[in-house]
Formats: sequence, C-alpha cells, structure tokens
Amino acid sequence: MSADHRDFYRGRRVLVTGGLGFIGSNLCRTLADLGALVTAVDSLLPDYGGNLFNLAGYEDRVRINIADVRGHGMEYLVRGQEVLFNLAGQVSHIDSMTDPLTDLEINCTSQLKLLEAVRKGNPELKIVYAGTRQIYGRPLYLPVDEKHLLQPVDVNGINKISGEFYHLVYHQVHGIRASSLRLTNTYGPRQLIRHNRQGFIGWFVRKAVLGEEIPVFGDGSQRRDFNHVFDVVDAFLRAGAIDASDGQVLNLGDEHPVSLLDLAKLLVEVGGGGSYTLVPFPPERKRIDIGDFFADVSKARAVLGWAPSIPLRRGFEETVAYYREHREHYL
Amino acid sequence: MSADHRDFYRGRRVLVTGGLGFIGSNLCRTLADLGALVTAVDSLLPDYGGNLFNLAGYEDRVRINIADVRGHGMEYLVRGQEVLFNLAGQVSHIDSMTDPLTDLEINCTSQLKLLEAVRKGNPELKIVYAGTRQIYGRPLYLPVDEKHLLQPVDVNGINKISGEFYHLVYHQVHGIRASSLRLTNTYGPRQLIRHNRQGFIGWFVRKAVLGEEIPVFGDGSQRRDFNHVFDVVDAFLRAGAIDASDGQVLNLGDEHPVSLLDLAKLLVEVGGGGSYTLVPFPPERKRIDIGDFFADVSKARAVLGWAPSIPLRRGFEETVAYYREHREHYL
Repeated sequence: MSADHRDFYRGRRVLVTGGLGFIGSNLCRTLADLGALVTAVDSLLPDYGGNLFNLAGYEDRVRINIADVRGHGMEYLVRGQEVLFNLAGQVSHIDSMTDPLTDLEINCTSQLKLLEAVRKGNPELKIVYAGTRQIYGRPLYLPVDEKHLLQPVDVNGINKISGEFYHLVYHQVHGIRASSLRLTNTYGPRQLIRHNRQGFIGWFVRKAVLGEEIPVFGDGSQRRDFNHVFDVVDAFLRAGAIDASDGQVLNLGDEHPVSLLDLAKLLVEVGGGGSYTLVPFPPERKRIDIGDFFADVSKARAVLGWAPSIPLRRGFEETVAYYREHREHYL
Repeated sequence: MSADHRDFYRGRRVLVTGGLGFIGSNLCRTLADLGALVTAVDSLLPDYGGNLFNLAGYEDRVRINIADVRGHGMEYLVRGQEVLFNLAGQVSHIDSMTDPLTDLEINCTSQLKLLEAVRKGNPELKIVYAGTRQIYGRPLYLPVDEKHLLQPVDVNGINKISGEFYHLVYHQVHGIRASSLRLTNTYGPRQLIRHNRQGFIGWFVRKAVLGEEIPVFGDGSQRRDFNHVFDVVDAFLRAGAIDASDGQVLNLGDEHPVSLLDLAKLLVEVGGGGSYTLVPFPPERKRIDIGDFFADVSKARAVLGWAPSIPLRRGFEETVAYYREHREHYL
C-alpha cells in the first residue's frame, strides 16, 4: 500500500489550491517528485502563508498559477485534472473574528464556487479537502474521534464546517468523490512564521529560531497533538489515491499529546538557546481557546493505512535548521 | 410564566426579519396584539413566502419595512430595538442545490452582516434565531435531542448550521444575547402554498384546500412531527422574554409523530373531499430525504416552559378553513 499510493501519482494531473502555502507547497514538491503533473493555485494574499520561495527549485516541475479562489477562473483550472487537493483557506481564528465576512468569502463562497465548477465541468475529479480539528471546539472527551459533536468557538471554525460539509453533500447528492482530512497542529518547513495570527506553533518555532523568549499562555498545561507536515502530506497522498476515502471525514493527529510547556522546553533545547516564559492569556485568545485536544486517528489508520511517523524532537530539529538556513524568506 | 412572557412585550421595540413570511407574520400580529412596537423587515423575494396580505388588518400597528437583509440598512434598522426575531431565510432545500450561492448569501452572508451590525450598533439586543431540525439530517436515534450529530443532507442544511453557530459564537465571544430555536415542520395560516419547493406540508394543505389528490412519496410510512404556527410563535415569545435562553439551542417539535400517510388521510378528512395517492420518490428528493424524524423537546420545556398545545386535527381544520376563506391571496 505504501508504495502503491505513491506510484498512483506518476503522470497524474493534480491541482493544489493553496499550493504556495505551508502544507500545499510541501504537497506540490512531493507530488512533483512522484512524477505528477502539478498545478499550484495560490492568490498570495498578504499574511496568509503563500510564499513563492516555498516552491524554490520546483519552478520547472510545478505550474504556478496565481489566482484568487473567490474569483472566476476555477472553472477552467479544474478541467482535465484528476485529483484536487483543496487547501486554499483563511486559517486565522483571530482574523475571522475581526473580519468575519472575508473568512466567509474565502472558506465558504469560494468552496461552493469550486464545487459547482467541478460538478458542471469535471464531475469525475477526486477531491481531498483540508478540514480542521478546530470545528470540534472544546473537547467533551479525549481522544476526539470523528463522531464528536461540532462546537466551533469562532467564525473560522463555523465556516470550515461548511466547507467540509459542502464536499460531503456534493458527494452524497452529486456523486463527487470528495473527502476531508481534519488536520490538527501541523509544523515543519515552509510555514508562515512572520506573525502569530495563524496559531501558536509557527510563533513558537520563530522564537526558537531567533533564540528569543517563547511566550506560553496560561500555565502551559494544555495538551495538544502535533503532526509534521511530511506526515500530513503522506495522509493527503493516501486519501487522494484510495477510493475508500470517498465521502469520509478522517482525523489526522497524534494520540500522544504534549503540553505546551513541554513543547516550549523542547523547542528551547532544539534551538540551542532562548527561553520560555508563562504569560497570562490575552482575553481575545482566551475566549476562543479550546483547552486540551488530541485526536483519535484510528479511522485514518483503518481507511488510509496512515499513522504519524516523524518523532517530535527530530521533526523540530530539522524544522529549526530549515528556517535558520532560509531565514530571509520567512522572518 | 405564561402571562409574564406575554406581558414582557408591552411597549417593547421588536424587529422581525422575514416579518411578512409565514411564521414572521403570525409573530408580528401576536406581538402587536400584546402591545409591542413592531417593525417587520421583509424583501418580498418572489417565491420565498413573504406576502403583504399576511399582515392584513395590522398595517397601522406593524411598521412594514421592505429591505433585503443581504444589502445595507440593517445597521440602521437594529438601532434602538430591544428584541430581534431573526426569521429571514432561504428555506427551500431543493433551491439550495440548484442555486447554492444564493442560499449562502441569504443564510450566511446576511446573518454575519446582521450580527456585525448588532455587535457594533446595539450589543444589548436580544436575538432569537429561527434554526431548523434539517441540520440533524437522517436521525441516528429518535427522538432527536440537541446533542444529536449534525449531518446536513443539502446545502441549505449546511448554511442553516452556520447561521445558528454565528449566533452562538457572537454570544460566547461578544456577549450578544442570542439563542436558536430548531423548528420542525410548521403548519397553519399564512404559509406559502403556491409551490412545493419549501417542503411537503404547504403542498399537502394546498391539495386539501383544493380537494385535489395529495401525492405521498414512497409508502408514506415516514413519521414526522408537526407544530402549529401559533405554538411556534409562543416558543419565540418565550425565548425572547426569558434570559435563560441566552446562548442556547432548543428543539421545537412534538414527541408524538405522525406518518405522512396518516397526515394525508387526516387532511382528506378535514378537507371534506379530495384523496391521496402513493407516488415514487422523485430522485432529486429521495437523495435529500431524511426518513423518520421527531424531536425531543424536553429542553424547550425546561428552559422555556413550552409545549405544543394545538391538536393536529383542530389545527388543520382551522388551517384549511383559513385558506379557503382567503384563497385569492395564497393559491
């Protein structure tokens, strides 16, 4: 299976929305390595994570198409494609509360337009959507499986539910071969680490890279699960290649959570300098914080044969080394 | 309590979106009778249910403001209001699949704009949102309580989830006093019965009024629960007057479901003529049909002191009589 799902992509026409972003660019690079004919669509909206350097060295093997998924053009871009990895999105919880209508346009309006384009122009297309564990809100039990209630705590969480459900309804009603991976905290190379509005993980990494003090909100006892982006890429590749994923939602994650305090300590060690400090929660973040979270990934294991494989320490060592080597592109 | 929650409205400034629609107009009439200062906002979009005749006789006591909730103007209209009953919406499941972007604009974009207007201009406003049992999809167990998974089967169900969640998040994050009633099949006077895209109930009533054959899809064994619109109005009045509803979602419904076949038989009796017939499910409806549904209403009973009170036979007798008396306005 492991070889099969990678062989599947040789010569395949694959479209990646958000292809210059963190996960999208890592996915495009791997797809190109596997011999796929890759088109990366990205709007390069400021502060969203798209970064041309993320495809450095792959400019000849990945077709880069700058376009806003909110606008026209997706009707053309989906034509003739065999797999769509649908990763374009507004991912900042904080921004979704200060500018909810932009979040709605990007995470809902554009998703519906894209699905309509697929339904009308390429209904055979296989789609894997990037969902998020954020839609579960504050867990009622741990680990959180896919049957957990959806209790979003911010507008971004609500709109990401819609984006996922649109895919599922287009599967049920129109037969579109769509599935969703519900991502947890993803880390690794090519992430946006310039500001802290897309979650704490990029910010922690930034501080470790710079040898600065890592601010941990509260007492740092909140436990979370983490996936290296290469493991996440592997899950997308599997979901795109495996028919059994059609119509499914699948948690990614790790059943061995780590407290934010322990993560900060690890990053200080890995960074070889710097420090961490406990700071009170800013009120606008406390209101949308979800406490402990880690995912039950047994369904992804069963359906995709997937499990996270990269140990946290090694993953962060390589991550910090990456940003230090390419700091002018990320800092 | 029963007297209290009605007394609450004397002299109150109350805004009703969708105020010329089925439930909205019945609510406006009762509010005016209770001495409230009522503004009914409605866009009178063709085929949506808004009908000027629904406020016949109340033109002097209800201020009618024609406006589209998607456009500007809500910032002004929410100012100075004390209670908002938020009933404007696209309610056709079928239309949401043929024109999903319009459903999104009306059920999501306009809801976010309205909540932003409230947050910025009148954060003390109490809001009751008209949710729907449609968001549960095909029940996993019966009766369905508010903890049931959300599994929408069409775009309308997805967007109605968002509309509800926006209200809850604005409550949690911004302190807006919002709640949602999840309505089941509502029947009674002032409903749209011209076409069958807003559900079977109006269509069944139309056929009974005209003495025509009632088409029952499948074998008619699907059980559903029904509320008379006056009972639904009573629930809205309670939710608007009672502080304990803030931040809550509450099922309406009836724990004594009736099969569609029995409902058709009842309507034939009540109509005093006509007939019913079993017809195969049209495929586009079968795909979004949810089978049996009836709601657990114990939470609404506990929080609001509400229970449905109008017996089905009497309710439909009066309903059929209403449409026969005013047929030129509804047929």
